[in-house]
Amino acid sequence: MNRNDVTEKIITAKVSQGLKWSEIATKVGMSKEWVTAACFGQMTMNAEQADAAAKLFGLTDEEKKWLMIVPYRGSLPTAVPTDPTIYRFYELVQVYGTTFKELIHEEFGDGIMSAIDFKMDMSREKDPNGDRVKIIMSGKYLPYKMY
Amino acid sequence: MNRNDVTEKIITAKVSQGLKWSEIATKVGMSKEWVTAACFGQMTMNAEQADAAAKLFGLTDEEKKWLMIVPYRGSLPTAVPTDPTIYRFYELVQVYGTTFKELIHEEFGDGIMSAIDFKMDMSREKDPNGDRVKIIMSGKYLPYKMY
Amino acid sequence: MNRNDVTEKIITAKVSQGLKWSEIATKVGMSKEWVTAACFGQMTMNAEQADAAAKLFGLTDEEKKWLMIVPYRGSLPTAVPTDPTIYRFYELVQVYGTTFKELIHEEFGDGIMSAIDFKMDMSREKDPNGDRVKIIMSGKYLPYKMY
Amino acid sequence: MNRNDVTEKIITAKVSQGLKWSEIATKVGMSKEWVTAACFGQMTMNAEQADAAAKLFGLTDEEKKWLMIVPYRGSLPTAVPTDPTIYRFYELVQVYGTTFKELIHEEFGDGIMSAIDFKMDMSREKDPNGDRVKIIMSGKYLPYKMY
Amino acid sequence: MNRNDVTEKIITAKVSQGLKWSEIATKVGMSKEWVTAACFGQMTMNAEQADAAAKLFGLTDEEKKWLMIVPYRGSLPTAVPTDPTIYRFYELVQVYGTTFKELIHEEFGDGIMSAIDFKMDMSREKDPNGDRVKIIMSGKYLPYKMY
Amino acid sequence: MNRNDVTEKIITAKVSQGLKWSEIATKVGMSKEWVTAACFGQMTMNAEQADAAAKLFGLTDEEKKWLMIVPYRGSLPTAVPTDPTIYRFYELVQVYGTTFKELIHEEFGDGIMSAIDFKMDMSREKDPNGDRVKIIMSGKYLPYKMY
Amino acid sequence: MNRNDVTEKIITAKVSQGLKWSEIATKVGMSKEWVTAACFGQMTMNAEQADAAAKLFGLTDEEKKWLMIVPYRGSLPTAVPTDPTIYRFYELVQVYGTTFKELIHEEFGDGIMSAIDFKMDMSREKDPNGDRVKIIMSGKYLPYKMY
Amino acid sequence: MNRNDVTEKIITAKVSQGLKWSEIATKVGMSKEWVTAACFGQMTMNAEQADAAAKLFGLTDEEKKWLMIVPYRGSLPTAVPTDPTIYRFYELVQVYGTTFKELIHEEFGDGIMSAIDFKMDMSREKDPNGDRVKIIMSGKYLPYKMY
Amino acid sequence: MNRNDVTEKIITAKVSQGLKWSEIATKVGMSKEWVTAACFGQMTMNAEQADAAAKLFGLTDEEKKWLMIVPYRGSLPTAVPTDPTIYRFYELVQVYGTTFKELIHEEFGDGIMSAIDFKMDMSREKDPNGDRVKIIMSGKYLPYKMY
Amino acid sequence: MNRNDVTEKIITAKVSQGLKWSEIATKVGMSKEWVTAACFGQMTMNAEQADAAAKLFGLTDEEKKWLMIVPYRGSLPTAVPTDPTIYRFYELVQVYGTTFKELIHEEFGDGIMSAIDFKMDMSREKDPNGDRVKIIMSGKYLPYKMY
Repeated sequence: MNRNDVTEKIITAKVSQGLKWSEIATKVGMSKEWVTAACFGQMTMNAEQADAAAKLFGLTDEEKKWLMIVPYRGSLPTAVPTDPTIYRFYELVQVYGTTFKELIHEEFGDGIMSAIDFKMDMSREKDPNGDRVKIIMSGKYLPYKMY
Repeated sequence: MNRNDVTEKIITAKVSQGLKWSEIATKVGMSKEWVTAACFGQMTMNAEQADAAAKLFGLTDEEKKWLMIVPYRGSLPTAVPTDPTIYRFYELVQVYGTTFKELIHEEFGDGIMSAIDFKMDMSREKDPNGDRVKIIMSGKYLPYKMY
Repeated sequence: MNRNDVTEKIITAKVSQGLKWSEIATKVGMSKEWVTAACFGQMTMNAEQADAAAKLFGLTDEEKKWLMIVPYRGSLPTAVPTDPTIYRFYELVQVYGTTFKELIHEEFGDGIMSAIDFKMDMSREKDPNGDRVKIIMSGKYLPYKMY
Repeated sequence: MNRNDVTEKIITAKVSQGLKWSEIATKVGMSKEWVTAACFGQMTMNAEQADAAAKLFGLTDEEKKWLMIVPYRGSLPTAVPTDPTIYRFYELVQVYGTTFKELIHEEFGDGIMSAIDFKMDMSREKDPNGDRVKIIMSGKYLPYKMY
Repeated sequence: MNRNDVTEKIITAKVSQGLKWSEIATKVGMSKEWVTAACFGQMTMNAEQADAAAKLFGLTDEEKKWLMIVPYRGSLPTAVPTDPTIYRFYELVQVYGTTFKELIHEEFGDGIMSAIDFKMDMSREKDPNGDRVKIIMSGKYLPYKMY
Repeated sequence: MNRNDVTEKIITAKVSQGLKWSEIATKVGMSKEWVTAACFGQMTMNAEQADAAAKLFGLTDEEKKWLMIVPYRGSLPTAVPTDPTIYRFYELVQVYGTTFKELIHEEFGDGIMSAIDFKMDMSREKDPNGDRVKIIMSGKYLPYKMY
Repeated sequence: MNRNDVTEKIITAKVSQGLKWSEIATKVGMSKEWVTAACFGQMTMNAEQADAAAKLFGLTDEEKKWLMIVPYRGSLPTAVPTDPTIYRFYELVQVYGTTFKELIHEEFGDGIMSAIDFKMDMSREKDPNGDRVKIIMSGKYLPYKMY
Repeated sequence: MNRNDVTEKIITAKVSQGLKWSEIATKVGMSKEWVTAACFGQMTMNAEQADAAAKLFGLTDEEKKWLMIVPYRGSLPTAVPTDPTIYRFYELVQVYGTTFKELIHEEFGDGIMSAIDFKMDMSREKDPNGDRVKIIMSGKYLPYKMY
Repeated sequence: MNRNDVTEKIITAKVSQGLKWSEIATKVGMSKEWVTAACFGQMTMNAEQADAAAKLFGLTDEEKKWLMIVPYRGSLPTAVPTDPTIYRFYELVQVYGTTFKELIHEEFGDGIMSAIDFKMDMSREKDPNGDRVKIIMSGKYLPYKMY
Repeated sequence: MNRNDVTEKIITAKVSQGLKWSEIATKVGMSKEWVTAACFGQMTMNAEQADAAAKLFGLTDEEKKWLMIVPYRGSLPTAVPTDPTIYRFYELVQVYGTTFKELIHEEFGDGIMSAIDFKMDMSREKDPNGDRVKIIMSGKYLPYKMY
């Protein structure tokens, strides 16, 4: 047994039960962004969160333990994602990568936006020309150390 | 001559003159995000914007024309970026790729967040534990067509 | 269970029953192009379409549910396809990629042809020198946003 | 000197003179699709076409001769294109690759659509919901030989 | 079940029964080159050929049907083959690729040798310095279309 | 200076003078297949052949010496060739690779067809349905050594 | 001009003048590890450090400015380094990658060792069986955020 | 059965029993760094160590033997690791690769730090600004041989 | 069943029985180098050798037949091997590749060292500074053919 | 200026002067294997050796200094070499990689053959069936450290 087995079992249970990520998030007690990532094997649950998830998806004790183990992260089967919904985010990195870099350096200095001390929120933005996906990312600025 | 030559000339001019992207953006009359991307050869300027940029950077007429030509986009020398500041964004795609996908589909249905009808804003988020980089992305939702 | 299992079951059923994609399309009530793509795990069926497909291919209830889940798209095992029939389309991208780009930009401006708000039709074109494959593609033009 | 040098000279001349591909096509006497591809080093001109192009772009005699030499084809710097306008066509191969294959085989038998005995036409399709890019491809069907 | 399962079953049967490709070819009624390729999942059999193969290898009815389905072609596990016997052919493409191209263009014009309307014959060439492998390839010339 | 410089100079001279490979071959005194490969930096000329080539293409003494140096072979810019005329040969390796292997082993035993002690001949095969490219390859069989 | 030009000029000056990294570090006023990385275009100097470096290497004013610009990081020409001295560090990642991960998680929880808030020291460790390279790395632990 | 099966069984047992690597190391009688690597199939145990591990994880005799067989090393599924905790080490190679090389050569001459005659120690470094991961590596210097 | 299954069964039997390659080689009646390669699916056994191996490892009749079938060669899971013991040989190709080439050409002319008509011997070389691995390779020189 | 420039100058001088590697080796005072590698930028010369080489090839003082700088090693333009003479050595790694590994481990234990404390000798082996290339490699055995 490994974490992928647990992930696949969770997805199958979600499909069978017709659950929504927002409902699952409420049960687990964290944001829908974090909980979805956790269910896809990208975040680590604590005991309480894992209990809630195990109950919801009908996991065994051993399966539940895997939710509390730090996973080997990386959710994509290829370096450049083939799925169009995900590819658009890769495209943003390709098109705006140097822009992200320049503006972070101009505002903060030489450093990065942390992808670890990071949170995000995805929501619907009403728009008469067609609704928009709105994503707010917030990552701690980490300056390069001189020594 | 090609667009890369113009990009390199712009960067060199910026370094020499000690300009900031926010100042350049004000001169060009658009957001700092869009203008930085345009200067890096990722967006297309109209005549007025190109005039402003050409004056600022001391471009020739032919160089200015290149700013108004749609560029071959893609700002990174490798599929997986080596620069740590940019890599963190690639890492977000790796870690959160399936999460982006799931939550867009749950909220909107089968479709994507456009990376074309897209805008973003990067700013400093004050935080006592260390300031944070805040990025707000907004892309039009585009549903898959059935036919 | 995952979507690939359902895809493989559908293909096997099609082989066993000797069905044609055009017949399947009629049963599902959409074009043959869209239905073939959907059966190969590239499009998402609604409840009615999934019912029809499930009946036709003898799918279980859980398998049917997978047809209604947005799939992880990408139908090829390698980035450059090895199958000659599919490779020819990749070759068109290699040979005509810059031409597609130039002519879209000349006619419409800086933007793309959507592969999401997209439909296509494939048919036989009678020709005394040998019949031809005719493909009509239609994708919405999406202009790059300035901001 | 090589073909790429000639291609770059042509593009630069086009930018400087502000020419359109459709005007160039009229001068060369072929379709805009074929002429654009030829100028990008993907098709071979005959003497008359090369004369017209050389006059238009101010090419030397040696440069003109390169237009009549069969080029090493392939217009993209990477196997998976980074430019979004071109990537959408690659995406179609990823999403519809197996569909193209299945429908060609169902209608014609075991064979391919030729990318050599091939022509295409790109045009604007008026649409109240936003104009569309329309591409009509026509390639000869070539059956696999049994022996 | 998929085509690979059938291929593996055929190879195993061939090993167990100690059959030769030339014997199998005689039974199927086509050349040894075509029949070997077909058994490796690279060509499509008609009903009669599939009947003969199914009898020879002890295939079930469903397995036999797979022999009549157009396969997803490509017989190598890596883009550059590791097996030395096959690699030598890849090496010929590397060393003689530009030569093939030049001589085809010189003799025929701008076009290709078809790999679809193609046949080949492999035989032993007696030689006092050591026998030689002789391969005769014949592929239809297809000229690039101007339009 | 390196061999590529010499190759490019030869190609340019051939274009300028309007020479044919078959004429060049006659001058150099070897087959058109070998001479074309040699001019593309894939074979090594002896003194006499290099003299003839140098005279024909107007090479300097140092350039001529490079023709007599064993080159670093490999004539393609990418592992999988993008040029359609050359790609068809790669496709043959993909589709027939296992067939080449099986038939060599069946006829000769465990070994390879040499790509070193190798020669080939390319010619036009007249055919009422369209002329064909005919390639005859002949490579020495080399058995694997047991020890 | 770009940063690589400055890096190459620095290396050439160091070779010509026979300087040592430890001497350069003393002049620049930081550790030898940081200064070497900075000279190779991996760290950003402040005005004082850049002054010292410019004087030492004879840089122009514009070249000096490049030392103060945040560089595009990544010092290796290939994803897997070919140089044996550097490869050994890649090998450590391959062999000990999962070990690094497990032990960080066991001691600290779910998070990473920062490569940004990071310093290191390389020294000689005397050993009768042959001296050893000793590297002390110290990176801030950054915990994954729950939200 | 192969070594991966044993590795997966060990990990599963560790998860089920809630063991820590430091406890396992104590039982096996070596450092936690070496034992973790050994359990992940990167080091070879002797009989005594394998006995202790087998008892701890409930391995069969055959499984225990695999622990004493030299493994095929390499603990990562991709050349560039996707997991952020491991990626940071790859990033260090990218950013500091040339620095490692230069400083080893300056201090020792032309040679490498051995990754075979190598040991390391990972520990917590208390720090008021946040604790730090401290890694001490020690590898024998090996000079290139002249001959 | 395929050759890999047989290879894995042989390795498992070797581990279980605690056999050495040199003992196996004696039983099979060939050198330890050839026999190890054959057991790893890289060489083809004749009937007598396969009988000996089958008896030793307890293979079935069908499994034994696979030992007599020419295998698809290539013993490494990645193009650049991750295992350090094997990587060192790849490193030799990287560092000495051009040297091998130059010295073969200088001594023999334009040709190769055959990897088919090839044998090798690996032994221990006693040395007071630490024993050495000694490998003697002998491959037939094959000259490139002119034609 | 960089090391590649010096390498190219050396090769050109060797071609112009018609020198042999064995003569160059005699002048430099080391083996032909080591000297060839050094000239190709894979080994580091000391002052005396560099003097001899500089005199022979007519190098400037600065160029001579580069010969004494430790180079960035790796002599091949692609990970899998395309040149057939060099490829055969890569092929040996592919075919015999696991055999090298097994026999080193059987004779010596868990460790590697050093590619650093390494020497080799290439010579002609007279053989009535065709002369053979004989390569004797000798690398120090390095055992993995337990700690």
